[in-house]
Parts: sequence; C-alpha cells; structure tokens
Amino acid sequence: MVKTRHSELKYIAKKAKEACWKLSSIDTDTKNKILKDLADALKENYESIKEANNKDLDAAEKLVNAGGLSKSLYKRLALTESKFSEMLNGVVDVSRLVDPIGNIELEVELDDGLILRKVSCPIGVIGVIFESRPDVIVQISSLAIKSSNAVILKGGSEAINTNVELVKIINKTLARFEEYPESSINLIKTREEVNSMLELDEYIDLLIPRGSNEFVKYIQNNTRIPVLGHADGICHIYIDNEANPEMAYKVCLDSKTDYPAACNAVETILIHKDLAAEFLKDLLEKFLNANVEVRCQEAIINKFNLANVSIAKEEDWSTEYGDLIISIKEVNSLEDAINHINSYGSGHTDCIITSNKEKADKFMNFVDSSSVYWNASTRFADGFRYGFGAEVGISTNKTHARGPVGLEGLVIYKYKLYGNGQIVSDYSKGLKTFKHKVVNNN
Amino acid sequence: MVKTRHSELKYIAKKAKEACWKLSSIDTDTKNKILKDLADALKENYESIKEANNKDLDAAEKLVNAGGLSKSLYKRLALTESKFSEMLNGVVDVSRLVDPIGNIELEVELDDGLILRKVSCPIGVIGVIFESRPDVIVQISSLAIKSSNAVILKGGSEAINTNVELVKIINKTLARFEEYPESSINLIKTREEVNSMLELDEYIDLLIPRGSNEFVKYIQNNTRIPVLGHADGICHIYIDNEANPEMAYKVCLDSKTDYPAACNAVETILIHKDLAAEFLKDLLEKFLNANVEVRCQEAIINKFNLANVSIAKEEDWSTEYGDLIISIKEVNSLEDAINHINSYGSGHTDCIITSNKEKADKFMNFVDSSSVYWNASTRFADGFRYGFGAEVGISTNKTHARGPVGLEGLVIYKYKLYGNGQIVSDYSKGLKTFKHKVVNNN
Repeated sequence: MVKTRHSELKYIAKKAKEACWKLSSIDTDTKNKILKDLADALKENYESIKEANNKDLDAAEKLVNAGGLSKSLYKRLALTESKFSEMLNGVVDVSRLVDPIGNIELEVELDDGLILRKVSCPIGVIGVIFESRPDVIVQISSLAIKSSNAVILKGGSEAINTNVELVKIINKTLARFEEYPESSINLIKTREEVNSMLELDEYIDLLIPRGSNEFVKYIQNNTRIPVLGHADGICHIYIDNEANPEMAYKVCLDSKTDYPAACNAVETILIHKDLAAEFLKDLLEKFLNANVEVRCQEAIINKFNLANVSIAKEEDWSTEYGDLIISIKEVNSLEDAINHINSYGSGHTDCIITSNKEKADKFMNFVDSSSVYWNASTRFADGFRYGFGAEVGISTNKTHARGPVGLEGLVIYKYKLYGNGQIVSDYSKGLKTFKHKVVNNN
Repeated sequence: MVKTRHSELKYIAKKAKEACWKLSSIDTDTKNKILKDLADALKENYESIKEANNKDLDAAEKLVNAGGLSKSLYKRLALTESKFSEMLNGVVDVSRLVDPIGNIELEVELDDGLILRKVSCPIGVIGVIFESRPDVIVQISSLAIKSSNAVILKGGSEAINTNVELVKIINKTLARFEEYPESSINLIKTREEVNSMLELDEYIDLLIPRGSNEFVKYIQNNTRIPVLGHADGICHIYIDNEANPEMAYKVCLDSKTDYPAACNAVETILIHKDLAAEFLKDLLEKFLNANVEVRCQEAIINKFNLANVSIAKEEDWSTEYGDLIISIKEVNSLEDAINHINSYGSGHTDCIITSNKEKADKFMNFVDSSSVYWNASTRFADGFRYGFGAEVGISTNKTHARGPVGLEGLVIYKYKLYGNGQIVSDYSKGLKTFKHKVVNNN
C-alpha cells in the first residue's frame, strides 16, 4: 500500500497492526514460496525498476550539481546491476534461513495436564526509517516476511520512484497469497510523516533507523517506541605490551583502512606505555603510507619525538571520524585501557592485541561492548561475517538485541498455557502442588 | 551506599556503572556464597530490621489515621514474621537458581582459528522504583547479585527506615567479599530523585517500576531508558459456544475472585452469542454469590432479561477494576473476541474456554498477549507458578522480555571473537572464505 498524506499515517499503522495479528499464522512453506516468487518478480520487473531508479538518479544528479545532495548518497542511490543481483540473492538467502517463528523455546509441565510453552512469535509492527539505498526496502521486507512482522517503511525522498516501484512489486507478489493479510508492507513518503511515526507507540512496536549518527540520535531521543540500532561506532584497539608487533600492524591497518566509513572501523588506538619507540614509529609509518591522518596525544609526540602527526584533543576520543583518520593514546595498563573504552566508547566493537590469554579474557569480560575481540580486526563485526545470513543492523542497546542483529532481533515470544480447567486457588490452598517438570529447554 | 542528596544521584549512578563493569567477572560460587551469607545476616539482624519496620509502621499509622496513606499500602509495609521468612527463603532460592551469566549461547567457527562466541552477560545498571513493600529491596538485590547487575533502588518514603536498614545489611555482607565492587547496591531516598533517575540514560540501562498503573505509566512516558514492566493488566476470558459450562464457571470465578487486586485477575468476560440463557444466568448467579459486581452490555441485559446487574459502558472495556467487579460482553464469533481483546486488552493474559482445539490454537496465535491460555485461570500468569523460581515482574513489552520475567530478563549477551590476527580484507578480496561452522547452538 502506498499512501502519502500525512493524515493517513495513523490509519496505515492501525491497519498494519491488524495485519500483524494474522501474520503469525502464516506457515513456513508459504513464507518461503512468497520469497522465491518475490525474487522472480523483481527479476521480471528489472526494466521498470531500472527506469524508476534512473528517474531518481537524474533528479539526484541535478541536486548533487547544485550542492543539495552528497556524492556518497548519490552513489548509494544507484541500483547497479551488481547491487540488483545482490538484492535478489539476499531474498533467496532469507528464504533459506530457518523460520524463527513458532519455536518452542521452553516446555514445562506445571502439573498434570497443565502444560506451559514459551513459543517464539513476531514482534508486530516494525517501523524502518532509512536514507537513500532503495535496496533496504527489499532487504527489510524479506526479513519481515520471514519473521511474520508487518512493516512501515520510510525511505529518503531522493529514492522515491525506486521505492514506490519496489513496494508495488512486493505487494503484487503478496496479493497472490490469499492468506497473507493486506497492509503488511507499507511505504510512507513524506519527511513530516517521520515525526508522526515516532508518536505512534500504540501501533508501532519497534523502530529501526538506518542513516547518519545525527539521524539515529534524533530518532532515539524523540520516541517512546523501542529503537534498535546504533548511533556512534567509536571502536578501539588496545595494543598490549605483550602484543606481537606484526599482528598489531596488520589488524590496526585493516580495522582502519578496509572501509573507513563503516561503523565497525577503528577510531582510536590505545598503546601500552611500555611498547618500544620503534613499534610506534613503524605503526605510524604504515598509517601514513596508507594515507591515514594520525592524531597523537601530545605526551607521546614529545616522548617519542614524532613527526608528521597532529595533536589529538580531548574531543578526538569521542569522535567517529568515518574517514582515514586515527587517534592514538598511551595508557599505563590494561585497566586504563578498559576504563578509557568504557568511558569514551559507544559499546560497538573493541579489540585487544596481546599474546596473553589472561589479559585477553579480562579485557573481553570488563569491556562493556556488544562485540569484544582478541587479535582480530574490528571490521568482523557484521551479521554476514558472523554467519547470520541476513542483518537487520548493528545494535548498541543493552536490552533485547545487541551487536550484529539477524532475524532473531525481529522476534519475541509468548507463553501458551494448555489446561483442562485448572484454577489457582487449588494450589494456594494446598489442594494441589506444582510439578514444574521441564519437558524441554532449547 | 545510602546517600540522599539530589545532587549526588549522578555520582551514585556513575559509580554503579563503574561497579557493573567488574561485576560480570564474579564467579558463581562467590555469588551463591554471598546470597547464603546474606540470608544469615538478615536472620541475625531480625531485631534491628523489626525495629526499623516498627518505626515506619508507627509513622504510617498516623498517616493512615489522618487519611494520608491507604490501608492497603500500610498492610504491604508490614514486614510480618511470615513475610520475613518468605523473604529469607527467596534469597536462598535465588542462590539455587542456575547462574544466568557466562553461558555460551552460540559458538561458530568463522574460519580456522577464528571463533565467535555469543556469551550471556549482565545488562549493567538496573534502576528499580517501587512503593511500600520493603521486601522488594531484598528480592531485587538477590536477583541483581545472582545476575551480576548493579542496582539503584528507590523505595517509598513510608518504608524509609526499613529500607535503609536492609540495604545496610546487604552492603555489610557484600563488603566481606573483596572481589565484589563497592557501589553495586544503592538506595536513594527522595521523591525528587526519581525524576533525576529518569534522565540518567547515560548510566542506567533498564528501569523496573513496581507500583500503581499511573505510576508505571508516568515512568514509561518520561524516560528514554528501557522500562520493563506493565501498567494495565486488562485480562479477558472468552467463553466459546463449545465451552464446558462447569469448567467455564470454575475458571471465571477463580480468575476474578482468587485475588482481585492482582494484575492477572480477569476484568472482562466475552461470551459467544449462541451460549444458552441458562448458562449466562448461572454464571451471573455465581458471581453475585461471590459478591462480584457484574456490569453487562445493555444488549444482553435486554436479551436475557437480566436482574441485579449494572450496565457496562464503553470505558468498562478498558478499565482494570482491581476489585470484585466484572464486565461481560457478547461477541458474534471467535474472530470478534480476538479483535476485542487485541483492541481493548493490555497484552497481559487472556484465556479461551472451549473444547475445540482448532479454535483454541487460533485464539492463542491471534491474540497478541504475553500469556494466552486454553482452559486455565488467568491467575496462573506469575513467575513462581511458571516455575522460574524468582520473578522480576510481569512485562507487557514487545521486545526484550515478555510475560512473567525471571532472571533471564536481567541478562543480555555479548559477542566474543577469538582470533590470531585475522583481517577482513583477506575475505573481501577472496583470499580466504568463511567456514561458518556452528560448533554449538544452545
């Protein structure tokens, strides 16, 4: 359903909520068939999608030339052939994932004939707000179909023609399945509607924002709806005095330069005070050779008499550069490193380089981040690299879902109790006692 | 630590956050020893606790007489001998529960020598705001100790002496364990501090309010911190036309009268239109005999020519009476019943009485509540009755934890990645490929 008028958003949300009550009963085979049909339909409609995308690209090009749109947003807007086929593969991949709905996570015989089951079920209505990339529509819709959730999608205005075309194809495919409720996949189009969406906690159960840090922070600070995701990704590598230098260089370089704009790229390197001057100089040289701007704490610039580096200021420790810039700070101990990370970090991904297992364990236990690494690049923090097959996003929340989130982040559970007339007063009066026999606990 | 001045709350929260980084490393044996010692310490200090409680009761009695405190709050304030021993048993029970921290929930070999583990860990700092009942201090503190979380407790001013005494004993016990960080269990005392607490999303990771509906709603609407719990508990029983009448009477009576003030007591009964007049009249008689005020939809009062009942108004369908009052409405079908419950309910606990399994399954799938029952009293919705051994509260949230919440609601996870220098560019360049071999998946 594609509706644009602001006043209709509440109606859309209400309809999505009603749809979601029925969605939990769609069986696995039907959901997988829908996904396969969707991949086919997208393929068949490649031309019309391409046409819509070209319209968006033409308009965006004018905006870029006029300085109204960044080149990187323009780049992400293009549904290139390779991105298109990646999108199709994504849909097929989701069809192959295990159905996360209807699993009996716990079964307890409370008493004879009184069986309690904890069963996984969809969350309900998911609101997704994203910028530019139209492929997010297909990615999130497939995940929603597989996890039996309804969605309300709000994409960037720069991708409007592509988004409308994609949602049209998705809803045409869904309409062929009689049991699939209408109003499950919805697109809203105006920016004003984002603010209305944030108010709809009566209907929307979870919000997933995908965009810049400021954008995500704005969403987090202006809604009562739970928000899944992360704003900052200030990742650290702590190089211990017992680190293997070659390993440290390799991991630091990859963490910074493999894709500097990614949220899991490293921003600050903490080095132990006993590391040799040559070690640091070699590291700096490697960074400089890779065109990385290095910002060092003034004390170590003086201590090691460093050249070609700038001075890191206090605000550098809490800055996500998203670019080829790295800040370096000296710490006195493992404990200092842990404190720095817990104070300045964003709970995303942090790594220790050491050959000492005990220190690694302490680091991984004490650092309060969703991903904690020993001797590996921070860039591994990603749902696909973790083997989840699909990624909803990366969450730095402390409840529900944390770190790279796969399908399980779109799932919750309900308790089903099967009885034959049991009442509680029999148990409180001592006429009966609970057995609490765990039948299974997955 | 017992501090009262408003300006110090932020400091307390910061210290609690620092404590929580260390808490995750306390081993199971130590935690269980602490809990056993705590039970002993409480026992040994029975007299001083009793004395403090008497002080509170004396002051509260004057307030009750002056009309400034309700009798029910006064009653909940009293730490009677039976409540005291229940409190002690609770601590020992928690010591016997399985440690929820440090479980490897998933282990995947991403590649040779690159092992990913999803490990359960504490959430961090839990804020608990509650009214009257001082035993909540001990209950929540034991759960926090077992789950390695730090807590900031705010009890009602009417229980201040008892609360201070209990926290003193808890912290004295904890101080005997060197590895246990200070500032893990904190009590704040003034009402103004509640509002400051709601602002401290930088330090507090989860809020658990325990009190009246208005109180919980206020908390939910005035903080960015995730809130675990429920405001309303508007529970329903739908009596299908294929219901066994005797079973229906029994379950309805228990659900209403076993403990009407509880959140899991039923408030509205939906009856199928084809149920016989005698059935309804018998049900009414039983309710009236049990001193339950019955409020019926006007249409069925006329249809069945009912006496001794009042007319239910629109607002009755969304009212939690918490008292010996029940509302009754006729529905045309199972679907109507489901729609009524999903529209007016609060997602707490809802039940169908029927002998038809297919209808029961549909009801349990389509009703979007945390507990859905077939032929059993709604009063079973409770952590102890579900066999969890301890209860944090009942949550009507759609994310994180739902229904009666045991220790697992105070737990989240982190990803630990163990490598030996692996970098991502090797995989993106195709020099290496992921194995993604699941080693275990609990």
